[in-house]
Amino acid sequence: MNSFGRRLRLTTFGESHGPAVGAVVDGCPSGLALDARDIQAEMDKRRPGQSAVTSGRSEPDLVEILSGVFEGKTTGMPIAMMVRNVDADSSAYLEIKDLLRPGHADYGYLAKYGFRDYRGGGRSSGRETAGRVMGGAVAKKLLSLKGVHVYAHTTSIYDVRAGEVALEDVIKNTYTNPVRCADLSVEKEMEEAIRMAKAEGDSVGGTVEIIAIGVPAGLGEPVFGKLDADLAGALMSIGAVKGVEVGLGFGAASLRGSEMNDEFLIDNGIKTRTNHAGGILGGISTGMPIVCKVAVKPTPSISKPQHTVNVETKEDAVITIRGRHDPSIVPRIVPVVEAMAALVLADHMLLSGKIGPPAP
Amino acid sequence: MNSFGRRLRLTTFGESHGPAVGAVVDGCPSGLALDARDIQAEMDKRRPGQSAVTSGRSEPDLVEILSGVFEGKTTGMPIAMMVRNVDADSSAYLEIKDLLRPGHADYGYLAKYGFRDYRGGGRSSGRETAGRVMGGAVAKKLLSLKGVHVYAHTTSIYDVRAGEVALEDVIKNTYTNPVRCADLSVEKEMEEAIRMAKAEGDSVGGTVEIIAIGVPAGLGEPVFGKLDADLAGALMSIGAVKGVEVGLGFGAASLRGSEMNDEFLIDNGIKTRTNHAGGILGGISTGMPIVCKVAVKPTPSISKPQHTVNVETKEDAVITIRGRHDPSIVPRIVPVVEAMAALVLADHMLLSGKIGPPAP
Amino acid sequence: MNSFGRRLRLTTFGESHGPAVGAVVDGCPSGLALDARDIQAEMDKRRPGQSAVTSGRSEPDLVEILSGVFEGKTTGMPIAMMVRNVDADSSAYLEIKDLLRPGHADYGYLAKYGFRDYRGGGRSSGRETAGRVMGGAVAKKLLSLKGVHVYAHTTSIYDVRAGEVALEDVIKNTYTNPVRCADLSVEKEMEEAIRMAKAEGDSVGGTVEIIAIGVPAGLGEPVFGKLDADLAGALMSIGAVKGVEVGLGFGAASLRGSEMNDEFLIDNGIKTRTNHAGGILGGISTGMPIVCKVAVKPTPSISKPQHTVNVETKEDAVITIRGRHDPSIVPRIVPVVEAMAALVLADHMLLSGKIGPPAP
Amino acid sequence: MNSFGRRLRLTTFGESHGPAVGAVVDGCPSGLALDARDIQAEMDKRRPGQSAVTSGRSEPDLVEILSGVFEGKTTGMPIAMMVRNVDADSSAYLEIKDLLRPGHADYGYLAKYGFRDYRGGGRSSGRETAGRVMGGAVAKKLLSLKGVHVYAHTTSIYDVRAGEVALEDVIKNTYTNPVRCADLSVEKEMEEAIRMAKAEGDSVGGTVEIIAIGVPAGLGEPVFGKLDADLAGALMSIGAVKGVEVGLGFGAASLRGSEMNDEFLIDNGIKTRTNHAGGILGGISTGMPIVCKVAVKPTPSISKPQHTVNVETKEDAVITIRGRHDPSIVPRIVPVVEAMAALVLADHMLLSGKIGPPAP
Repeated sequence: MNSFGRRLRLTTFGESHGPAVGAVVDGCPSGLALDARDIQAEMDKRRPGQSAVTSGRSEPDLVEILSGVFEGKTTGMPIAMMVRNVDADSSAYLEIKDLLRPGHADYGYLAKYGFRDYRGGGRSSGRETAGRVMGGAVAKKLLSLKGVHVYAHTTSIYDVRAGEVALEDVIKNTYTNPVRCADLSVEKEMEEAIRMAKAEGDSVGGTVEIIAIGVPAGLGEPVFGKLDADLAGALMSIGAVKGVEVGLGFGAASLRGSEMNDEFLIDNGIKTRTNHAGGILGGISTGMPIVCKVAVKPTPSISKPQHTVNVETKEDAVITIRGRHDPSIVPRIVPVVEAMAALVLADHMLLSGKIGPPAP
Repeated sequence: MNSFGRRLRLTTFGESHGPAVGAVVDGCPSGLALDARDIQAEMDKRRPGQSAVTSGRSEPDLVEILSGVFEGKTTGMPIAMMVRNVDADSSAYLEIKDLLRPGHADYGYLAKYGFRDYRGGGRSSGRETAGRVMGGAVAKKLLSLKGVHVYAHTTSIYDVRAGEVALEDVIKNTYTNPVRCADLSVEKEMEEAIRMAKAEGDSVGGTVEIIAIGVPAGLGEPVFGKLDADLAGALMSIGAVKGVEVGLGFGAASLRGSEMNDEFLIDNGIKTRTNHAGGILGGISTGMPIVCKVAVKPTPSISKPQHTVNVETKEDAVITIRGRHDPSIVPRIVPVVEAMAALVLADHMLLSGKIGPPAP
Repeated sequence: MNSFGRRLRLTTFGESHGPAVGAVVDGCPSGLALDARDIQAEMDKRRPGQSAVTSGRSEPDLVEILSGVFEGKTTGMPIAMMVRNVDADSSAYLEIKDLLRPGHADYGYLAKYGFRDYRGGGRSSGRETAGRVMGGAVAKKLLSLKGVHVYAHTTSIYDVRAGEVALEDVIKNTYTNPVRCADLSVEKEMEEAIRMAKAEGDSVGGTVEIIAIGVPAGLGEPVFGKLDADLAGALMSIGAVKGVEVGLGFGAASLRGSEMNDEFLIDNGIKTRTNHAGGILGGISTGMPIVCKVAVKPTPSISKPQHTVNVETKEDAVITIRGRHDPSIVPRIVPVVEAMAALVLADHMLLSGKIGPPAP
Repeated sequence: MNSFGRRLRLTTFGESHGPAVGAVVDGCPSGLALDARDIQAEMDKRRPGQSAVTSGRSEPDLVEILSGVFEGKTTGMPIAMMVRNVDADSSAYLEIKDLLRPGHADYGYLAKYGFRDYRGGGRSSGRETAGRVMGGAVAKKLLSLKGVHVYAHTTSIYDVRAGEVALEDVIKNTYTNPVRCADLSVEKEMEEAIRMAKAEGDSVGGTVEIIAIGVPAGLGEPVFGKLDADLAGALMSIGAVKGVEVGLGFGAASLRGSEMNDEFLIDNGIKTRTNHAGGILGGISTGMPIVCKVAVKPTPSISKPQHTVNVETKEDAVITIRGRHDPSIVPRIVPVVEAMAALVLADHMLLSGKIGPPAP
């Protein structure tokens, strides 16, 4: 269950405060140029400790490739990668180890496994997503060979909403600012919303949009391996994501068919006039851009006192969470969302034979 | 890809206008009392031809169990079930076989498979969901042994929204009316919205809520087999679903952590005061009711003329869709949504050992 | 667990004395010409009631295709097939329903499932293999498009051993005689060995060789999806098979490397001078013929009295098995072995992209 | 394809001359006492450089656990483990990098991947089995909790055959001598057979028997996940294995049913008088010891000159293999065979609920 994908298969491992976090990617075709810098570039996008709006934990996250690459190219063998955990500090967790943190997986893990690794949430920590980003970096490299590119950007933080932005702006602007917002006119406001929440010992949620371009028509497998089903599962598997939309999403529910349907036309091949469907019909890609959106809940770790339960004494209690936390997960989830979408798309490119085995 | 689930594995088959549609359920423990009436009862909920707001196609959908049951009990062997297609009429499709129907999977299938079964959409038809409902019926029976029950109900049709309803009303009211709405005060309005759209040759979308009660804490597998990830994938795999929310869903994106977090308390065991999380934290169930919502797009088959493309001539064209269609998919999707949620939950009950092998 | 394969996925269902046995094949590419006669031809090879050396049960085994084929071609959708059980007679089983049949799965099923379908062994019956043959028929058709052909033939029955035979003789002779032996000089002796065992209320075992020609080099996936590993698993999953060899098999254990190694040479491409490896090195095909052998145990159902246990009284007992049984499973296992090998090879052809998606 | 198992899932990575080899075990229940010494003990059994009959390569193989263990116990999270490659020396391979080594996977890899990691065979090297042994160590620890133990021992080397040995002798003697033989009366002869082959620049094969005790009745899943099918696939996936037998194996082919069948009797529960079936009937364990045997081919790397092909010039050539090789793989395959059998058994214990989730 720590593995994901069908043909391109990612297995991740590691806990927040254990020795290392890592990933094994199986099924990557041979002959892909790949080195540690490709992985590092993606890891740097999600690295903690980069700004006032993210966690103070400072991890260098230097990626080592352990296998699967020979003379600068993938061999078709599993690609194992890892980063050591360096700045783990469990002291803040020791004092609350018997208290359930509201909004966290603590109780579920306890109920499931009989005990839990209380140090920073163990595997349920956002640190787990490092493995996803490593895997996503391989997927992105693979997709780029076929002209497929995946972009994500923050579309809202708390009550601050980005306006519509052109794809060029998403590409150009997203990683220029700490909130990963492509609409520079609201970017400062978003930062401010996070800073205000933080100042009050609180946190905020937001939304992130994903756009994938260059995806050919015909990706997706009926009826349980549909492209949108796989994207929804992949995105919802990211901690803190509480909703997923494809195309108009919930907006489609209050439309009529004549408003929702995208009419087909001939325009340098078969296209649709609009893209309300978000590039997927009947679970199969249409050749239009894939567009999804996720809802990200506010970081559950807040320093405001909260009511909770002590699992040892079975009594009500009050918890105040110290430690170093992102006052909003949204900015750091952007590269993770990209990684998961890239993994799904690369997997389906392989499934559909759009990325094939090496020429003999 | 026509199989779903890990321990309880559903494989479905059949096309809209082929000889039969059916399902094979593998992994059901032995000793479960099961006969064809259990399946029939669920199939009757989704049967076409029941009211003015659904398709005129009239399928008896008589279920035959082909294997896996002996002396009224499951044997642990695969349970194969099927219904014959009786009222398939392909004539209306013949005249539009070269035209892409807007909002349908036609183009994706053509791009993927090189040709397509144009008769009623073939496998991309809503008729495919019959197999899901057969499988879901087995899952529901299995869950009911452990006190787990899954309910779905229509929460909006077009611009008509249901108010908050108590669980008792969901259980009591949903299947008493053709729109499957638990809030009887708006039910007639919903019917009217569908009828109006139909009168104009159009269709409408809506939303459906799922509530599962009795689910124990500790279901869900980190990090890619999370309960919410599996639910999202399962629900998004249903044709016409464009969005999935767990708990507050997109509402969570504009909240603060202190508003979103569900505080724990002791109340006959460990509970949460609120259930904004929809019963799932970190991908693991908390013991609170599981609450999800899906967005259903309006039926793409409308009789209004639409612009499209003729794939043979590669020219622009106009399509007018005849045939018999549901003017809203929402009412008939309700039992399908229940089925998919039940399959996911039963699968995780088996994975977690909450439903075990038979006592020796 | 009633599903097999990765890309070409076979799910089988049905019990010996239930309503039907069948199969669902998922993952077959679209555009393959296929009709019920293709399946029927393979089914006829394993049909009971064909000669004095097989079971007297007489099943017409008329195959119905329920889905996945449109206008004589596969659509890429799951292909469901079934045959009705017609001549099931459970009476002989009723009197021994509490007695464990030596050599049968009875005790394992009882221990595992808490009770068992005693009628003809239920799912553990050889009748289960009908579903394998249906699936294998699709695989064979798919392979034949690429010039890959799978043949099996009986190489020994009891103490009667076939001599070395040329491939032409395997193709020409195997299905001309009831024991499925390609060496016609020993065929009558094999029949006689079976008849003698039958006359004494006993049964005999034997061996079957599989030869697959036209398999390109490069099939097989390191390190757990090796071609020989998949073949071994597939063949050992057939009831009554107790051993699997690839190439020289156990003969290799008493050789030196210089004797075992197949030297490479240029001969219209890269070939090996000998084929001790059976066409597979390091789990990957070499382009030479794939050669395997299986050991088939004697039919466990014999009419001689045997000591056993009554599971109700928990006392020692004596069992005499009536019913209609094959005095040797070997002849009827030949098409099953072909089917399983064909499924593995077709699966790997798809995995390796040697059989691709349809041209756009 | 570098992953193995259903509930207990092993993913391995690493090449002979890459930075590291390792394994990730997913699905191990929480609460199992485990530390690096448990893994190290098994790794030491397969370590190269231990005697005159094995390779001269000297790897310390110090195991590091990277995740999944907290306070000395497993957490239910993936257990990642690795050892660094220290003594890799690729120089001997450079001069033969364009020559196909007879008996090796070179040609298959080249045909499949377009190029190959020529350094020591890359991933097709026996070094890959280190990951299997790490995973097997976890499986063994898990099984031992339930009284299940897996033993393997060398039963023949070239023409030297061990006599029948009691289980106690297998346990006591196997790892006391470099050939891993439990019959001490022939052990020196086996060593001599290896030494003689080595002296002549040649190598020898052999056979290894596996015995698993304490396996409860009822393990195995019909019809494609049978216990013997999974064992056969697992064992055949080990490089150099060319044959697998369960119980009497090929010996069963020349028996009558009355000779082969194991009669049931009451003897402190239900037992069989003999165990010709090797503890598995119909793919399900009977509660008797599981007994299998594998055929191991002679090491393909021999220093005698062999005919082969140069893949660059496409011309015939002669190869002389230097490098450091085991003159027989048999002794070092013994712990690998144990590991694979243990993984299959632990997987099925989990599948059958015989090893359950932790008590709540």
